[in-house]
Amino acid sequence: MTELYIAIGAGVLALLVAAFLFRLVTNQPSGGHAVQEIGALIQEGAMAFLRREYTILAGFVVIIFIVLAVLIDFNVTGNSTIENLISDGNLSVTGPWTAIAYLAGAIGSALAGYIGMNIAVRGNTRTATAAETGLNPALRIAFNSGAVMGLTVVGIGIVGVTILWLIFGNPNVIAGFGFGASSIALFARVGGGIYTKAADVGADLVGKVEAGLPEDDPRNPAVIADNVGDNVGDVAGMGADLFESYAGSIIATIALAWTAANAVQDIEAPKIVLPMMLAGIGIFASIIGTSIVRTKDDATMGNLLWSLRFGIFGAGILALIGTGIYILMNDSLSFDLFWVILVGLVVGQVIGTATEYFTSYEFAPVKWIAQQSQTGHPSTIIAGIAIGLYSTVIPTIAIAAGIWIAYELAGLYGIGLAAVGMLSTLGITLATDAYGPVADNAGGIAEQAGLDPEVRERTDSLDALGNTTAATGKGFAIGSAVLTAMALMAAYGQVIDIDSFDLLQPKVLIGALVGALLPFLFAGLTMQAVGTAAGHMIEEVRRQFREIPGLREGAPGVRPDAARAVDISTRGSLKAMILPGLIAIAAPILVGLFVGAHALGGMLAGSIIAGFLLAIFMANAGGAWDNAKKYIELGNFGGKGSDPHAAAVTGDTVGDPFKDTSGPAINILLKLMAVVSLIFGPLFI
Amino acid sequence: MTELYIAIGAGVLALLVAAFLFRLVTNQPSGGHAVQEIGALIQEGAMAFLRREYTILAGFVVIIFIVLAVLIDFNVTGNSTIENLISDGNLSVTGPWTAIAYLAGAIGSALAGYIGMNIAVRGNTRTATAAETGLNPALRIAFNSGAVMGLTVVGIGIVGVTILWLIFGNPNVIAGFGFGASSIALFARVGGGIYTKAADVGADLVGKVEAGLPEDDPRNPAVIADNVGDNVGDVAGMGADLFESYAGSIIATIALAWTAANAVQDIEAPKIVLPMMLAGIGIFASIIGTSIVRTKDDATMGNLLWSLRFGIFGAGILALIGTGIYILMNDSLSFDLFWVILVGLVVGQVIGTATEYFTSYEFAPVKWIAQQSQTGHPSTIIAGIAIGLYSTVIPTIAIAAGIWIAYELAGLYGIGLAAVGMLSTLGITLATDAYGPVADNAGGIAEQAGLDPEVRERTDSLDALGNTTAATGKGFAIGSAVLTAMALMAAYGQVIDIDSFDLLQPKVLIGALVGALLPFLFAGLTMQAVGTAAGHMIEEVRRQFREIPGLREGAPGVRPDAARAVDISTRGSLKAMILPGLIAIAAPILVGLFVGAHALGGMLAGSIIAGFLLAIFMANAGGAWDNAKKYIELGNFGGKGSDPHAAAVTGDTVGDPFKDTSGPAINILLKLMAVVSLIFGPLFI
Repeated sequence: MTELYIAIGAGVLALLVAAFLFRLVTNQPSGGHAVQEIGALIQEGAMAFLRREYTILAGFVVIIFIVLAVLIDFNVTGNSTIENLISDGNLSVTGPWTAIAYLAGAIGSALAGYIGMNIAVRGNTRTATAAETGLNPALRIAFNSGAVMGLTVVGIGIVGVTILWLIFGNPNVIAGFGFGASSIALFARVGGGIYTKAADVGADLVGKVEAGLPEDDPRNPAVIADNVGDNVGDVAGMGADLFESYAGSIIATIALAWTAANAVQDIEAPKIVLPMMLAGIGIFASIIGTSIVRTKDDATMGNLLWSLRFGIFGAGILALIGTGIYILMNDSLSFDLFWVILVGLVVGQVIGTATEYFTSYEFAPVKWIAQQSQTGHPSTIIAGIAIGLYSTVIPTIAIAAGIWIAYELAGLYGIGLAAVGMLSTLGITLATDAYGPVADNAGGIAEQAGLDPEVRERTDSLDALGNTTAATGKGFAIGSAVLTAMALMAAYGQVIDIDSFDLLQPKVLIGALVGALLPFLFAGLTMQAVGTAAGHMIEEVRRQFREIPGLREGAPGVRPDAARAVDISTRGSLKAMILPGLIAIAAPILVGLFVGAHALGGMLAGSIIAGFLLAIFMANAGGAWDNAKKYIELGNFGGKGSDPHAAAVTGDTVGDPFKDTSGPAINILLKLMAVVSLIFGPLFI
Repeated sequence: MTELYIAIGAGVLALLVAAFLFRLVTNQPSGGHAVQEIGALIQEGAMAFLRREYTILAGFVVIIFIVLAVLIDFNVTGNSTIENLISDGNLSVTGPWTAIAYLAGAIGSALAGYIGMNIAVRGNTRTATAAETGLNPALRIAFNSGAVMGLTVVGIGIVGVTILWLIFGNPNVIAGFGFGASSIALFARVGGGIYTKAADVGADLVGKVEAGLPEDDPRNPAVIADNVGDNVGDVAGMGADLFESYAGSIIATIALAWTAANAVQDIEAPKIVLPMMLAGIGIFASIIGTSIVRTKDDATMGNLLWSLRFGIFGAGILALIGTGIYILMNDSLSFDLFWVILVGLVVGQVIGTATEYFTSYEFAPVKWIAQQSQTGHPSTIIAGIAIGLYSTVIPTIAIAAGIWIAYELAGLYGIGLAAVGMLSTLGITLATDAYGPVADNAGGIAEQAGLDPEVRERTDSLDALGNTTAATGKGFAIGSAVLTAMALMAAYGQVIDIDSFDLLQPKVLIGALVGALLPFLFAGLTMQAVGTAAGHMIEEVRRQFREIPGLREGAPGVRPDAARAVDISTRGSLKAMILPGLIAIAAPILVGLFVGAHALGGMLAGSIIAGFLLAIFMANAGGAWDNAKKYIELGNFGGKGSDPHAAAVTGDTVGDPFKDTSGPAINILLKLMAVVSLIFGPLFI
C-alpha cells in the first residue's frame, strides 16, 4: 500500500510544483500595451476554441458514459465480464464504475489541456518581454511554462490511475480512464491539428507567398489564428496525446500483470505496483531535472541545447537509479525488469536521435532536400517524401528490437513495462516539447508588437531549439504510442482469453488489412480537412486584402479582422474532427461485433504496424521539409527569395499537415482503438 | 492428362496468334523519313537499355542458379525438403531441378519483356502513320501491338508452368519458375520505372517549365529518353510484373492443393489441374475478346472505351462460362469453386472501377484537386495526397471481402484460385494496358516529326483512353499481386508445416513490423533514385540548351544530343535498381535464418498488408494528379499557362514516380519475398 501512496504523493507534488511554476511565470511582467493587446487576442482565440471544443465533447462524453454504463457496467447484453469480477470480491456494489472511470479520464485530459493552454497563452507575452532583457530569463520563462504542462500531465495521470486502482482494483474498470483520456485526446489532436495547420498554411500561402509579407507580419489577417493554432495544436494536442500514452501504458501494464496466466491477483502484487511506482520515481526525477535547466546569459545555441539535454538525461539516469534500487529491495521482482525499463528509455532515445538525424539541417538528408530544391517544386516534394519514407528504418528496427528484448526478459508484461519506462520521465520531456510553441508565439508577438529586432533574434534561437526538441518529442510520442497500443492489444487478448491471433486465419488477415487501412483513411481525411479549411482561410485573407483599404500597404491605424480568421479555423476544425473521431471508436466495435474477436486482434495489429510506419513517414518528411527551408534561409542555395527558397516553402507548407495534423493523429488512433477493444472485448465473444 | 495438354495448347495458340499479330503490325507502313528516324532512335535507346539490363541480370541469375542448386537441390545443409520429395517417387533422379525451373522463369520473363518491347517500338511509328488516315486503323495497330504483349505473357506463362509441372510434378520445384519470373520482374520494374520517370521529370521540368517548350518538342534533349522510358517502364516493366503474378498465382494454387492436409497428391488431381485449365480457358476467351475490339471511323472517345470494355467483359464472361461448364462436367470439383473464380474476377473489376473513380477527371476527387490548385503548389500536393490516402478504402474492403468469401468456399486454396480467376483473362487486360504506351509514343513521334496536328489529336484521344485503361490496369496489378502473395504465403506455411503465425508471439509481431517497413524503404529508395537521376537529367538538358547554339530557338538543322540523355537515364536506373533488388531477396532469407520461420510468416503478412495500402495510395495519388493537370488543360480554372496549371504540373511531376516507379515496384516486392520464402522456407526450421 505504501508504494501506491508514494505514487499518489509524487503526482500531488508534481501538481504543486506546477502550481508554483504557474505563479512564477504569471508574476513576471507581461509587457507593454502592444504586447498585452496581441497576447490578449491570442488568449481569447485559444480559449474560445477550447470552450467550443469542450462543449461539443461534453455531449459526446455523456453519450459514451451512458453506453458504458448500460453495456459494460450493468451488463444488459449479459456478455460483459465486469459482473464476474464483482463476484471475485473486488467490487462489492454494482455501479457504473467503468463509466465513472471514463468520465475521470475525460475530465483529466480536458483539465490537463486547459491548464497547459492557460500557461502557454500567458507564458508567451512574458517570454517576449523577458527576451528584451536577455536570453536566459526568456529561456527560463518559456521552459517553466512548458514544465507546468509536463508536470500537470503526469500529475493528473498518476493520481487518476492510482486512486482508481485503489478504489476498484480492477483493470477493466480503470481501462475506462484510458478510454476517457484517449477519446478527448483524439478530438483535441485532430481538431487542434487541423486548426493550427489551416491557419498556418493560409497565413503562409497568401501572406508570405502572394502578398510578400514577412512571417508574423501584423497586416496578415491570419497571423493571430496561426499563433492561436500553435497553442491549440502543439500545446493542448500534444499534451492530451502524451497524457493518454502515459495513463494507457500504466493501465495496460497493470492489466497484463493482473490477467496473465498464474498471475497473483492482489491489487498490491509487486508486478502491479511496479508501473505506478516507476511513474512516481520518474516524477521525482523529472522535477529535479526541470530545476537544473538553466543557462548563462551569453549562451550559444549549443549551450542551450546542452542545458535541455542535461536536464532530460539527468532525469532519465535518476529515474533508472531509483527504480533499480526499488527493484533490488523488492525480493519478488526479478532484476530483469530493470533491464526492461532501461530498454524502454533507450529505444525512446534511439528513435528521438534518428528523428533528429533525418529532420535537422546539420545532417545530410535535409541538406539533400535543400539541394534538390534547386530544380523546382516537384523535386523538393519528391526528395522530402523519399527521406520520410526511408527514415522509418531505424525507428522500426529499434522498436522491433525493444519488443523482442522486453518480451524475452518479461513476457508480454515486459512490452507494457518498457512503454512505462520510456514515458517515466515524461514530466521533463514534455516540458521541452511544450516550451517550443511558447517561444514561437513569443517571437510572433515580438514581431507584431514591433519590439526591437534583437528580441526577435533571441526568441528565434529559442524557437530553433524548440524545433529540435519538438522533432525528438514527436519520435518519442510515436514510439510510446506503439508500445502502449501493443501492450493494450496484448491485454485485450488476455481479457477475452484468446491466446492467438493467427495470420493464417483469413478473418485475422482481413482484420489486419482493415486495421492497416484505418491510418491511411485517417490521414487522408485529416489532410483533406486541412486542405479545405486552408482554402477558406486563403479566400478570407485575399478578401480582406482586397476589401480593407490600406491594409496591404500598412496604413497607420488599419488592422486586419483577425477574429474572422480565427472563427474560420475554429469552425473548420471542429466540424472536421467529428468523422475521424467516430470512425476510430466505431471501427473496432463494428469489426468485433460483425467479424469477431479474432479479427479485431488482427485489426489492432494491422493498425499499429501500418500506423507506426505512416506516422513516422509523415512526421519526418514534414520535419525535414521545415528545416530544408530554414537551411536555405540561412543563405544556402540562393537564400531567401530565390527560386529554391520558393520550392522549399512549398515543401514546408505540405509538411505542415504531415507533421502536425495527420502524423500525430495516427498515434492516438492506435491507442484509442486498442483501449476500446480492451473495454468492449468481452461483448464480442 | 488431357486437360494439361489443352492448357499447353492454349498457350501455344496464344503465342501463334501473337506471332501473327506481330507480322500484321510490322507489315503496316512505318511512315516517312522523319517518322522512321525518330522511331529508330527510340528503338535503339530501348534495345540498348534492355541489352545492358539483361547483361547485368545474367550474372545475377547465374549466382542464384548456383545458390539454388547447392542449397535446395543438392541439399548441402541437409535441411532442404526436396530430397524427401524425391523419395516420394515424384522425382527419380537428383539434379538441379529447382535451379533449372528458376532459369526457365527468368528466361521466360526476359523473353516476354523483349518481345513486348520489340513490338512496342515498331507499333509506335506505324500507329503514328496510320493515324494520318483515321482513328480506327490507328486503334487497331496500337491495340494489336498491346495484344502481342498480352498473349506472349500468358502464352509463355502457361506453357512454362504446365510443362514444368508435367516433368517434375513437385510444387517446390516449379516455385523456382515463379522465383525466376519475380526476380527479373523486380529489376525490370524498378530499373524501367526509374528510367522512365527520371527522363519524364527531367524533360518536363526543364523543357516544359523552364524553357517553355510544348510536350514532346524535338528541341528538348530529354524527349527521346522520355519516349524510350515509356517502353522500358510501362511496357516491359508492366509485362514482367503481370507475367509473374500470372505464373505465381497458378503455382501458389497448385502448391496449396498439393500440400493441404488430406490432399490427393496426384499431379492430375482435379484441384491441381483446375488453375491450369482455368488459365487455358481464359486464353481462348482472351483471343476471342481481342478479335472483337474494333471501332467505326467516326468513333467518339465513348465508343472507343466501350469497344475495349466490350472486349474485356466479353472475354471475362466467356472464361466464366467455359470454366463453369468444365467444373460442372467434373464430378470431383465442387461448384463452389466457380463462385470463387467469379469472386476473383469481380474483385478485380471493383478495384479497377474504384481506381477509375479516384483518378479520372470525370469524377469529384480529381476535380477537387484541380480546384485546390488555384491556391498554389502546396494545395495541389496536399489535395492529391489526401485523395490517394483515402482512395485505399474501396480496394481494401473489396480484397478483404474477396478473401473472406474465397476462404469460406474453398479454404486457403480458394485465395489462390481467386487470384488465378482475376488473372484468367490477362491476355486481353494486359493488351489494353500495353496499348497505352504505344499510342503515347505515336503521339510523341507525330509531334517530333512535324506531322499534321490532326494526327496528334487522334493519337491524343487514343492516349487519353490508354490513361483510363492503364489506371484500371494498375489497380488490377496490385489486387492480383496481393492475392498471389497471400496464396504464396499460405503455401509457405503449408510447406514448412506451420499452422499459425500468431501476432501475440513477439517474433511474429516483429516480423510483421519489419515486413511492413520494407515497402516504405523500397518506395523511399526508388523515389530517391528518381530524384537523383532526374537531377542529372535536368543538369544535362540545361547544359545542352546553354552550350548548343540555336537549340532553344529551334534553328534549322540544330538537334539536341539525345543519346547523352538516354545514356544518363540508362546508367542512373541500372545503378539504382541493384540495392532494392538485393534487399527484396535478402530480407526474407535473413529474417528466416536469424529470427525464424514464424517471424518470416509475420514478415510476409506485414509486407503484404502495408505494401498493398502504400502501393494503392501511390498509384492513385499519381493518377489523380496526372488527370487534374489534364482537366485544367481542358480550359478549367484558367487552363494552360495559368498559375493553377503550374501548380497542377507540380502535382503531375511528383505523381510520376508515385504511380510509375515506387507504387508498381511494391507489387513485385510482395510477390518476390513470398516466393523466396516458399523456396527457402525448409532451410529455416
